[in-house]
Amino acid sequence: MKTVDGPAAAAAFLDAERPRLEAAVARLTKRLRSGAPSALADALGYALGAPGKRLRPALCVAAYRGAGGSAVVPEPVYDAAAAIELIHTYSLVHDDLPCMDDDDLRRGRPTTHRVHGAATAAVIGAAMIPAACALLDEAAARLGARPGVRAEAVRQLASAAGGGGMVGGQWLDLMAEGQPLDVARLEMIHARKTGALFAASLRLGGLLAGASPAALDGLGACGVALGLAFQIADDVLDEVGVPAVLGKTAGRDRERSKATYPALVGLEAARERAAAGAAEAVAALRQAGLHDEVLEALIGFAVDRDR
Amino acid sequence: MKTVDGPAAAAAFLDAERPRLEAAVARLTKRLRSGAPSALADALGYALGAPGKRLRPALCVAAYRGAGGSAVVPEPVYDAAAAIELIHTYSLVHDDLPCMDDDDLRRGRPTTHRVHGAATAAVIGAAMIPAACALLDEAAARLGARPGVRAEAVRQLASAAGGGGMVGGQWLDLMAEGQPLDVARLEMIHARKTGALFAASLRLGGLLAGASPAALDGLGACGVALGLAFQIADDVLDEVGVPAVLGKTAGRDRERSKATYPALVGLEAARERAAAGAAEAVAALRQAGLHDEVLEALIGFAVDRDR
Repeated sequence: MKTVDGPAAAAAFLDAERPRLEAAVARLTKRLRSGAPSALADALGYALGAPGKRLRPALCVAAYRGAGGSAVVPEPVYDAAAAIELIHTYSLVHDDLPCMDDDDLRRGRPTTHRVHGAATAAVIGAAMIPAACALLDEAAARLGARPGVRAEAVRQLASAAGGGGMVGGQWLDLMAEGQPLDVARLEMIHARKTGALFAASLRLGGLLAGASPAALDGLGACGVALGLAFQIADDVLDEVGVPAVLGKTAGRDRERSKATYPALVGLEAARERAAAGAAEAVAALRQAGLHDEVLEALIGFAVDRDR
Repeated sequence: MKTVDGPAAAAAFLDAERPRLEAAVARLTKRLRSGAPSALADALGYALGAPGKRLRPALCVAAYRGAGGSAVVPEPVYDAAAAIELIHTYSLVHDDLPCMDDDDLRRGRPTTHRVHGAATAAVIGAAMIPAACALLDEAAARLGARPGVRAEAVRQLASAAGGGGMVGGQWLDLMAEGQPLDVARLEMIHARKTGALFAASLRLGGLLAGASPAALDGLGACGVALGLAFQIADDVLDEVGVPAVLGKTAGRDRERSKATYPALVGLEAARERAAAGAAEAVAALRQAGLHDEVLEALIGFAVDRDR
């Protein structure tokens, strides 16, 4: 896989975009406070305020630019990207619940249910999906998108979040604990749990930029491949990482006898599969006529966090 | 409050509509199986298959007819109504979770988490919201609704389900346990927890029928008043009812020192408030120019289940 100076380009993009992405997350948090009960909004704000990589919204913004959107990205694109981060954040809150993975640490801080209680954590999950859809719809409207495009955007986000996507993948992942699992099935779980929202992040950026159907398909295929590569890299990090880098309790997967890529094929083969997935993600973009240094750099960054 | 022969008209309508509503729920269950993992769809099917009153979808269909829709209601209207029942069912599954009300019995059967486990029950909740939005969107499209109307329908359902609506109300209800509560605050909780989805049921029926903005507002106001009346009637049932009528464990509210209308103002005053709420609901319809025997009969039925 040939990349430009990936790490430097990715870091430069993420550094440059971080203030705008964080500002959008802050606007979103404020908006949530105006609708939901205040203590519920506090818990939402706590979950959203944790220092995340904001990788999915960054991919959305990069896809917007890479797929023909204006070089000066309008504010509503950041708001749409923040709606994706809201769905992702909800999935983390949910994943950590006592009845799910029962985790204490996330993004370097106590998990939401440890601070705000399990009932509140369970409820904010359900509150975030409609909120994210509404915020995305509004953002698309502010960009002047036609009703059909707005509805398509909401459909894609909801579908990526739902039973056929992220939530279904989370559940399959949980049910697979302690079960024998082969690589094909693990990849199917990862495709839903992680790939669906990565694909939606990239496709939504393209959709808001008015990209062609072929470009949208390329962005979607890129997201699925990248999601798998990212998840394998995450499994590798869980195996070798320390909490300070990982932001969550290390070694939990093995402890819960969760089938992971490194457990199935070994650490080095897992790293190779992650790199191959990143190469597939780049190839999917290029086949769709999208040659974009920033997107390619972000793909490299997503799978190279443990080096 | 003057009504036509309410109980007979309501029973006739519900009996006549039940097969079509159940058929729509069955179609929806089948559709869910095609997207979500199969065992997750089984749990969804279990929750949906419980013998419910199907009151919210019946209200949607009645509103469609009462607001000028065709007398022979097209199939997609039933599918839209079933999407509302899906949101309602999700709220019951969620409400019964160990980290929420921790209930064993619902609609006369063991609760979903008792049969399918807490993790699955927690996850299907989150899976149901996007699924309901997608099904409603499709149903509206099959009715030939414009993209703007389809999007508006999805917005209303998602908003009724979310943190400013049903989920927010559930959470406020849970947080209020053991706290001193006055009537105004209790009504605010009920308006969100129950009123929002009743209002959406009626409004969506009107929206699909192409009702005027004034009629839609009347349907919404009717739903809010009816939701409050229904919830008070439900509290009364919890106080005096037996599980066979109620379909869930009786006396749980008092046991959990939950503030209820009967506990705050006494049983008779609670019954009077429910009747007054039903009268308000009818008045809201009539003020909007909607004079409909079936809708008025259903309103009476919703608050008179304990007699």
